[in-house]
Amino acid sequence: MNTADLPPERRRRGRPPKQDGAHQATRERLIRTGVAILTEKGLSAVGIEEILIAAGVPKGSFYYYFGSKEEFGGVLIVAYASYFARKLDHWFMNEARLPLERLRDFIEDAKAGMARHGFRRGCLVGNLGQEMGTLPEPFREKLHDVFLDWQARTARCLQAAKEAGQIAAHEDCDHLAAFFWIGWEGAVLRAKLERSPAPLDAFARGFFAALRL
Amino acid sequence: MNTADLPPERRRRGRPPKQDGAHQATRERLIRTGVAILTEKGLSAVGIEEILIAAGVPKGSFYYYFGSKEEFGGVLIVAYASYFARKLDHWFMNEARLPLERLRDFIEDAKAGMARHGFRRGCLVGNLGQEMGTLPEPFREKLHDVFLDWQARTARCLQAAKEAGQIAAHEDCDHLAAFFWIGWEGAVLRAKLERSPAPLDAFARGFFAALRL
Repeated sequence: MNTADLPPERRRRGRPPKQDGAHQATRERLIRTGVAILTEKGLSAVGIEEILIAAGVPKGSFYYYFGSKEEFGGVLIVAYASYFARKLDHWFMNEARLPLERLRDFIEDAKAGMARHGFRRGCLVGNLGQEMGTLPEPFREKLHDVFLDWQARTARCLQAAKEAGQIAAHEDCDHLAAFFWIGWEGAVLRAKLERSPAPLDAFARGFFAALRL
Repeated sequence: MNTADLPPERRRRGRPPKQDGAHQATRERLIRTGVAILTEKGLSAVGIEEILIAAGVPKGSFYYYFGSKEEFGGVLIVAYASYFARKLDHWFMNEARLPLERLRDFIEDAKAGMARHGFRRGCLVGNLGQEMGTLPEPFREKLHDVFLDWQARTARCLQAAKEAGQIAAHEDCDHLAAFFWIGWEGAVLRAKLERSPAPLDAFARGFFAALRL
């Protein structure tokens, strides 16, 4: 429910409304900072204090913005997933390019993004997925759902490629999209380990070879 | 240097020799337990105490066996890498099977191994690779070298497949082996997340599609 729908008098009573500008700006800064740190280090090894310091938010005020570290983690997953879904749509729905070239454009953009951060930052969802042995169990379904969403967007792009005759009619685009995301996350992991774009290129080359007509 | 090469009188002086049977047995138990826990949880989120308790070794005695948590981590990487290299050789050098079937046998064995542990345990090297943002920098080269070793063993199996006419003569077996390990680690990550063999099967299907003549 969007609190903008609440009648004004309800929004004035009790503690300051959560939509208070400064409160909201600080909360968003914590989310942005949290996403940046978690793409590098995951969640298990990161203390809330590290995120507060990086965001320039006073220690001890964390619980004014989030109920728990677990709730914060859930918010970061949603924020990253929707940021990334917009990024995928930007590339995959670019009608100026043939569908497979849109996928190549996404790959090039991801490579440039990783290079910009010295290949220290990877994928928040991949990092947390790898950490499920130590994370709260409810994260499992959230993370899996994010992959399913990205795969569905990718499958639509591959379906368009099939309709454009770029991949064979017998290919299963859902299977191919799952194959892409399973392997791509491995490639991001290796690119971080090697501090190099080579694993991203190696996976892309293999993936497009699997698609060849 | 193997201490068995030292003259006997040197081995009797000072503190008890490290080759003392009980000492060695406890050290090996710590390594086995450490490998099991790290394949599930990685290193950053695991305390030495958790490993000592699981191994039934008294708290406080850790430093009798290892100089530091970092040294212990390095020993676990070596132990896991050599265990895994033997496993790869077992499957990849099985002359009773055609080379690509050897790779399929390895995949089936890995699936069965993950299933046996409820898909909670993955790859120690993949886990630590994902954690490089928080691990000691010297681990990076160690982990990368392990992947290069596994890739070299896999490339030899693929080379045999090429010689047997199972893959096209123009394929680059080193590239294919890198593609396999980049994607396979992603598949192991997803299999842990989903607690299911489906991602391993999905990656294998895509990989073998990329090899088709």
